[in-house]
Amino acid sequence: MATTSAASTIGPAVPTSAAAVRLRPVGLDDVHVTAGLWHQRAEVNRTATVPAGLRQLRAADNVQNLEIVAGRAEGEARGPIFADSDIHKWLEAAAWEYGRSGGQELMEAMLDLTASLAEAQAEDGYLNSVVQLREGARYANLPWSHEHYCAGHLIQAALAFSRTTGRTELLDVAVRFADHLVATFGPDGIRDVDGHPVIEMALVELYRETGTRAYLDLAAWFVDARGHGNIAGHGHEPTYFSDRVPVREASTVEGHAVRAVYLAAGAADVAVETGDVELLETLKIQFDAMVGTKQYVTGGLGSRWEGEAFGDPYELPNDRAYAETCAAIGGVQWAWRMLLATGESRYADQIELMLYNGMLAGVSLTGTEFFYVNALHLREDAHPDEERSPAHGRRGWFDCACCPPNVMRTLSSLEGLIATTGDDESVPSLQIHQFAPGRIQAADCTVEVETDYPWNGEIRLTIQQAPVHDVAVMLRVPAWAEGATLDGEPVAAGGYAAATRTWSPGETLTLLLPMTPRFVRAHPRVDAARGSVALLRGPLVHAFEAGDQAEGVVLDDVSLDPNAEVTAEPRPELLDGVTLLRTSGRRHRASAAVDAAGTARAAGGGGDPVSLTAVPYFAWANRGPQAMRVWIPTS
Amino acid sequence: MATTSAASTIGPAVPTSAAAVRLRPVGLDDVHVTAGLWHQRAEVNRTATVPAGLRQLRAADNVQNLEIVAGRAEGEARGPIFADSDIHKWLEAAAWEYGRSGGQELMEAMLDLTASLAEAQAEDGYLNSVVQLREGARYANLPWSHEHYCAGHLIQAALAFSRTTGRTELLDVAVRFADHLVATFGPDGIRDVDGHPVIEMALVELYRETGTRAYLDLAAWFVDARGHGNIAGHGHEPTYFSDRVPVREASTVEGHAVRAVYLAAGAADVAVETGDVELLETLKIQFDAMVGTKQYVTGGLGSRWEGEAFGDPYELPNDRAYAETCAAIGGVQWAWRMLLATGESRYADQIELMLYNGMLAGVSLTGTEFFYVNALHLREDAHPDEERSPAHGRRGWFDCACCPPNVMRTLSSLEGLIATTGDDESVPSLQIHQFAPGRIQAADCTVEVETDYPWNGEIRLTIQQAPVHDVAVMLRVPAWAEGATLDGEPVAAGGYAAATRTWSPGETLTLLLPMTPRFVRAHPRVDAARGSVALLRGPLVHAFEAGDQAEGVVLDDVSLDPNAEVTAEPRPELLDGVTLLRTSGRRHRASAAVDAAGTARAAGGGGDPVSLTAVPYFAWANRGPQAMRVWIPTS
Repeated sequence: MATTSAASTIGPAVPTSAAAVRLRPVGLDDVHVTAGLWHQRAEVNRTATVPAGLRQLRAADNVQNLEIVAGRAEGEARGPIFADSDIHKWLEAAAWEYGRSGGQELMEAMLDLTASLAEAQAEDGYLNSVVQLREGARYANLPWSHEHYCAGHLIQAALAFSRTTGRTELLDVAVRFADHLVATFGPDGIRDVDGHPVIEMALVELYRETGTRAYLDLAAWFVDARGHGNIAGHGHEPTYFSDRVPVREASTVEGHAVRAVYLAAGAADVAVETGDVELLETLKIQFDAMVGTKQYVTGGLGSRWEGEAFGDPYELPNDRAYAETCAAIGGVQWAWRMLLATGESRYADQIELMLYNGMLAGVSLTGTEFFYVNALHLREDAHPDEERSPAHGRRGWFDCACCPPNVMRTLSSLEGLIATTGDDESVPSLQIHQFAPGRIQAADCTVEVETDYPWNGEIRLTIQQAPVHDVAVMLRVPAWAEGATLDGEPVAAGGYAAATRTWSPGETLTLLLPMTPRFVRAHPRVDAARGSVALLRGPLVHAFEAGDQAEGVVLDDVSLDPNAEVTAEPRPELLDGVTLLRTSGRRHRASAAVDAAGTARAAGGGGDPVSLTAVPYFAWANRGPQAMRVWIPTS
Repeated sequence: MATTSAASTIGPAVPTSAAAVRLRPVGLDDVHVTAGLWHQRAEVNRTATVPAGLRQLRAADNVQNLEIVAGRAEGEARGPIFADSDIHKWLEAAAWEYGRSGGQELMEAMLDLTASLAEAQAEDGYLNSVVQLREGARYANLPWSHEHYCAGHLIQAALAFSRTTGRTELLDVAVRFADHLVATFGPDGIRDVDGHPVIEMALVELYRETGTRAYLDLAAWFVDARGHGNIAGHGHEPTYFSDRVPVREASTVEGHAVRAVYLAAGAADVAVETGDVELLETLKIQFDAMVGTKQYVTGGLGSRWEGEAFGDPYELPNDRAYAETCAAIGGVQWAWRMLLATGESRYADQIELMLYNGMLAGVSLTGTEFFYVNALHLREDAHPDEERSPAHGRRGWFDCACCPPNVMRTLSSLEGLIATTGDDESVPSLQIHQFAPGRIQAADCTVEVETDYPWNGEIRLTIQQAPVHDVAVMLRVPAWAEGATLDGEPVAAGGYAAATRTWSPGETLTLLLPMTPRFVRAHPRVDAARGSVALLRGPLVHAFEAGDQAEGVVLDDVSLDPNAEVTAEPRPELLDGVTLLRTSGRRHRASAAVDAAGTARAAGGGGDPVSLTAVPYFAWANRGPQAMRVWIPTS
């Protein structure tokens, strides 16, 4: 099997050397996070989440479905039509994790599932246990059947397994399936597209790995075949499927949020591999529209429960935020591709925002319970009415279990999002986009990173090895980091602070990001946050949980003074180690006698002073479900 | 067939003489609205909506389903499982309309459908065309099959037909079905309840008509059999079905809004017919909780699209208000029963609020297009993503077409909600709850009502006939009507202004309700309306539509001065005749560069003065879908 040069990097999105990108990823094998928050989360992922995921997949019969088709078991297909995809996503997570930490047990579990997949695969390469067992006809209902979606996740799993283990068993299955798709779909075949994107990203990546141009061509065809209003079903209009407007004509994202961002990420892959500048420009506009009008302060994407969808611009209710964990993950995948393509730090800012908040809130500190939906406000008297209700607290699994294995594969491959090298070989450069203690080997350098980020804003680099020519070492300065310094010199927020020289081992660079807590306001069109502020420190959004407040304080009846002092209090024993924020506000009396329908006057008056405490948003709901607010009205 | 005395009144909810009620309805035959807004709407209902409804039911194959079972046609069942209910609701509307206005064509259409129903009915009384044709087994999936729901609407239609025509063809069908239910369900039969209430109201009413106690007993059993967490399915938890907490233990409403209010209305019927004071008290608490924490300023009920459901208390987003047209109608039905039971004017206030705003907005001025969902805010750049999206504007019909025939039956029986007589025979009394020009015959009086309400606050009664003893004439003074007078004397808002005397023909009574426009604020816990006001005049909520504003004014970027003058401008040529409200506010520049996710500062500053114009909420979206706001931030 031919392998293009660039694809030798180990990671989830590795553009070929011919791709029109500004930055090149530094693979998982060259970035090692050895301590700090992300290491802690990755270790929980390794020891608790990934093993629990396999148990859940067995309990929910996803594995059994495959084994029935493989002839290893008997029975009927169970679970949703996209059941296979959860297996594929778990396999991808396990493969990246194997690359991080090895382990014979993990390898055996992967090989066992791989054997089932190989045995379940049809003669011509088709593979989808639920369709094979229950639905009968292939591609009879592609808007809803998720057959390409499952294929896409299978391909992604196979690439991870191949890249971290060097073994080709799963890649062989994926290639057979991809060849079947190439033979079956496209301008000369079936002209339908799957209701749920992901196949686009997967086919481009398989092209990157194998050099087989037909995969890229089919991905490009899928991108352009979408957007003509042909996809409908299950009560949804084409909008839901990102099918109302062609990708290259769209000026924003709409419809089902995960579908929309997966599609955009795949389109970005196509754009850079085909040098399609027009498509990339359109994606920049869409990304900006998303961030500017359809994203929560937590990075959460998608406000509508109905259709798990993006709402209209500025339609961002906090209590009914959908902000699906998967959507934040898809947002990271899209942002990563835009970062590689453009080299612009704002995409790395977005990755940071979505990872620390929108994604990380989706899994408990124990690693075994998940939020599907990430609200920014849970009332004192909130009542769950279905399995995704945040009022249930995080849950061990879901009937639609897309989010848990998505968290797993993100955490096990997160080291791949930390650094890049510049594509300009005349001035070799190393970009550090995300800050975590450990070691980075890239641009012929070995760099040690020491930091307690995100709890502390000091990031200290020590060059351990370097070539005998200039290298530009570039550290991202987040847009929020006004007042940052590099080795004591002021650097502009929103870009990269660079030092270019011929480095000697032992030389250091120190970036200081100010970690002063800050109140932010939403755009005035956001109804639910009008007259309110949210509290951030560094990249972390904070949440006020009922249990941390003085007795009797009802979070729905407090206000904050945005000019009040905020103190940061490191609490290593709390919530696996967080920094609390404390500030002051007022508590108001809510009169039950007043009337929600507008015939009342505002209750409470001035209110009594009260101290208020916030934890990082990602850590909320780890002490039982309880009332919580991110946005709080100002006094 | 035995007929109890009270049931000789013609109307939709007629308690027996033994019922524990404070007020007795004055039937449709004794109240004639002859002009004004409600007459206009009823005439459009008669001439346009009811005829269009039958055409739509034929086009959507609801009629065909029945005809197949009746052996009049061939084919397969089409449409949702509750398809029959839309026929029944249309029949009920047609029957009340026949009582209003007669008409041979209407009678023939009703008899034709009645014949199909009679022929489709199974030997043992069972009747549900979709189950008979498609589902096979009866009651196999009662949480979702709507079999009792359809039965309930059939019974309600039959009672209307019987009461307005004196003909028993449809009532015979209904009685056979009810007898089948009595023989099949209850403590000694199948112990399941339908996922969707309405059968409770229907069985009580059939008891009222026939005197058959078993119907009341079964209704009472259904009420108490609910609330034990047994009903689930279609992805919904028991909460959705009002099945989490027994009705008599619940302190609020929750879950699917129409289910919840239909159940409560049926429980109120049971309570008054069985003298169940405890149950009635519980329903009062639930009603207050609904009005106080879960109702929009428009009277709209249910904020969640997911599950068409009540949200948590104060969860009342304006853009994503669900406020299903059917829920306002169910709210009116519940409020009417509470009004009869208690004699308290606040229930009549609620009927007024929900009729003029939450219900009436659900149908176009032409009578042929409908809103399923009644938003309180539609953005400039709102984009529809499914058939119910308000951004589509009103639509001719829906796949789930519950709302249109519900509007029809409400408008054709609305005269039954206007007046009552007191249950205390020692002091005969007449209550006038809703104000419309026409004639009322009750309490041995004939009263002429002259008014241009709701455009004008003067209501002038002329006694045309009266008995030779004292009669108390009581006029509702809405809670919003501070400063009202009766014959020039101040009367308290929120109650009834009464005059008790032996009336002479020609005597008059004049109630003056102040119609000064007023700004109201929401409860401070309502995030989406924080810092905002809504504009009301009399019972009418007003809406700011984009097309009425100065060129270039973007409604999402304006603010209102709640101390500004508001002028009322009658516009007989506009929107079938409305009174416009004009006031002043400021327009702000929204910066597209600021960031929805909270990293921006409030845009716009002071803003430029601008004149702002509002129309009655019920009349919005009659000039094409366009941006609209009910709640507007204050300057």
